[in-house]
Amino acid sequence: MATNHQFKLAARPVGMPKRSDWDYVEVPVPQPNDGEALVRVIYVSLDPAMRGWMNEGRSYIRPVELGAVMRAGVVGQVMESKAEAFATGDYVTGNLGVQEFATAAARHLVKIDRTSAALPTYLGTLGMPGITAYFGLLDVGEMEVGQTVVVSGAAGAVGSVVGQIAKIHGGRAVGIAGGPEKCRYLVEELGFDAAIDYKAGELSTRLREACPDRINVYFDNVGGEILNTCLMGLALHGRVVICGAVSQYNNTSAVAGPSNYLSLLVNRARMEGLVVFDYAERYAEAVQTMAQWIGEGRLKTREEIVEGIETFPDTLLRLFKGENTGKLVLKVADE
Amino acid sequence: MATNHQFKLAARPVGMPKRSDWDYVEVPVPQPNDGEALVRVIYVSLDPAMRGWMNEGRSYIRPVELGAVMRAGVVGQVMESKAEAFATGDYVTGNLGVQEFATAAARHLVKIDRTSAALPTYLGTLGMPGITAYFGLLDVGEMEVGQTVVVSGAAGAVGSVVGQIAKIHGGRAVGIAGGPEKCRYLVEELGFDAAIDYKAGELSTRLREACPDRINVYFDNVGGEILNTCLMGLALHGRVVICGAVSQYNNTSAVAGPSNYLSLLVNRARMEGLVVFDYAERYAEAVQTMAQWIGEGRLKTREEIVEGIETFPDTLLRLFKGENTGKLVLKVADE
Repeated sequence: MATNHQFKLAARPVGMPKRSDWDYVEVPVPQPNDGEALVRVIYVSLDPAMRGWMNEGRSYIRPVELGAVMRAGVVGQVMESKAEAFATGDYVTGNLGVQEFATAAARHLVKIDRTSAALPTYLGTLGMPGITAYFGLLDVGEMEVGQTVVVSGAAGAVGSVVGQIAKIHGGRAVGIAGGPEKCRYLVEELGFDAAIDYKAGELSTRLREACPDRINVYFDNVGGEILNTCLMGLALHGRVVICGAVSQYNNTSAVAGPSNYLSLLVNRARMEGLVVFDYAERYAEAVQTMAQWIGEGRLKTREEIVEGIETFPDTLLRLFKGENTGKLVLKVADE
Repeated sequence: MATNHQFKLAARPVGMPKRSDWDYVEVPVPQPNDGEALVRVIYVSLDPAMRGWMNEGRSYIRPVELGAVMRAGVVGQVMESKAEAFATGDYVTGNLGVQEFATAAARHLVKIDRTSAALPTYLGTLGMPGITAYFGLLDVGEMEVGQTVVVSGAAGAVGSVVGQIAKIHGGRAVGIAGGPEKCRYLVEELGFDAAIDYKAGELSTRLREACPDRINVYFDNVGGEILNTCLMGLALHGRVVICGAVSQYNNTSAVAGPSNYLSLLVNRARMEGLVVFDYAERYAEAVQTMAQWIGEGRLKTREEIVEGIETFPDTLLRLFKGENTGKLVLKVADE
């Protein structure tokens, strides 16, 4: 009988998740019931948001329960189907968790087209991160032609798409990232107008230089001092899109609040939270639009793929250490 | 020759404004030029925002210059007019500063009707504070029928109007104020559904009790820990209107940032700054609507009037010590 390896949440982490916060277990491969498909997981999406799901308390989604398989989006292939909509061999995405095999009801799976994009791209630019960037910038951020967009975590899965969409929409894109290599990537490969290495000295001066007309949309993935500095640079009626706060997720003390929040008053600006699930009915709009841009060579995608489900605890931490460029994906089986 | 007493800004305060931050001077009464009127000031508006105007730096309005008469809205009476639109005896409002007499171009004065409201009301509910409450709640806050509105500084000039408009618009009004007397005033005289004395113990529990369906609009006049606590109580798609931060204006250390700002993400909520000047073209709408409510007895107004221009430095501080209920007005001459 085939076996299935899973990572289950063993303890709620304090600070950075430790190896002992996980249980790595081996169980039998499940059988699909009527209306379900059995999926062989190929790629597992690793996202900063996963850290939040490990905490107790009220949030935009229920916490992962102790003892449950860790929640994660995946790309996989149908091995056996008892659902009309799927056939053996179909490639699908769904929230199947950090494991090698899973059954899921048909309504929880989406068929994907391997010929129009590489499979891992469906976890990145054509998955939640890209869709988040799309609606965050255009809908919540209400970016308009000619405006200046600043994005933090700019070399990550969401940020890299935000800046590129800003360019496609006729704006100025300024990325904030850690280290010269990421900054070079943003400007030379992705076409950002400027990139600022936040590790290389005072941010506020360089932000002013990069944004002579101030900031119309600041897309925040990191929180902390970077958010605080960007608040001071807002233009009149600027928008701050709160997408995440990766600098704060592993805090053991309180989150750092943005002491410059009164810039919202000075500039009649707003700061608004974004949860991509609210756009579920419009996912197709974003995916079709971005797939077309990818096909035209206007939107570039990059995934950083780490192999081996057993590396999951360490690989996840790359997100919080700023070690990845592009979308971080865990490969658990061959395509 | 008649004399004019003025308060000029002598120094930029550090923390609470001191007596030595002001120059109290005597100068001749000015003569109006063509197109101007000479106004005898009767009431001077005292507002928390004045503290911000005393600071250097970029804000929504230029700072008061050192050596200049302190900026303030006033109600007064025209003594002599070289402007067609005004006649001797007319009552007017305008930003004429903390002084007894001033000349102003006709475009900077607005005639007011003494028969439809008491003169000091034109500095409170029918002045900037009331108009701020009106557009802040209905426009920025987008309050809808049946929603829960929480307002801090609730017994002040802005807050007391916010809560009453929330009731008029079919919502639930919860006020946060300091001390049992203010709280009694809010519930018994102004008709708030509940009032919470922030000095009387832990705020978050009492806020949950007063807002069983959470907070749709939080109208913030105070900042600090009260803002932070209210952020945690937001309903899905809640709105935080940033009108002021009276708890922070006299800080000598950094402003306290709202460490719970990620509640904006959890609740897909937004926090937005409000400057009433942006609504200048719609002032009349607010004033006419509120004057009608006052006439119908649905909107109650209260001014706390302190006599004597020479008391200005001390009277201003009442705002920052939480000593006033309703609109704080300095009376500098008889009507």
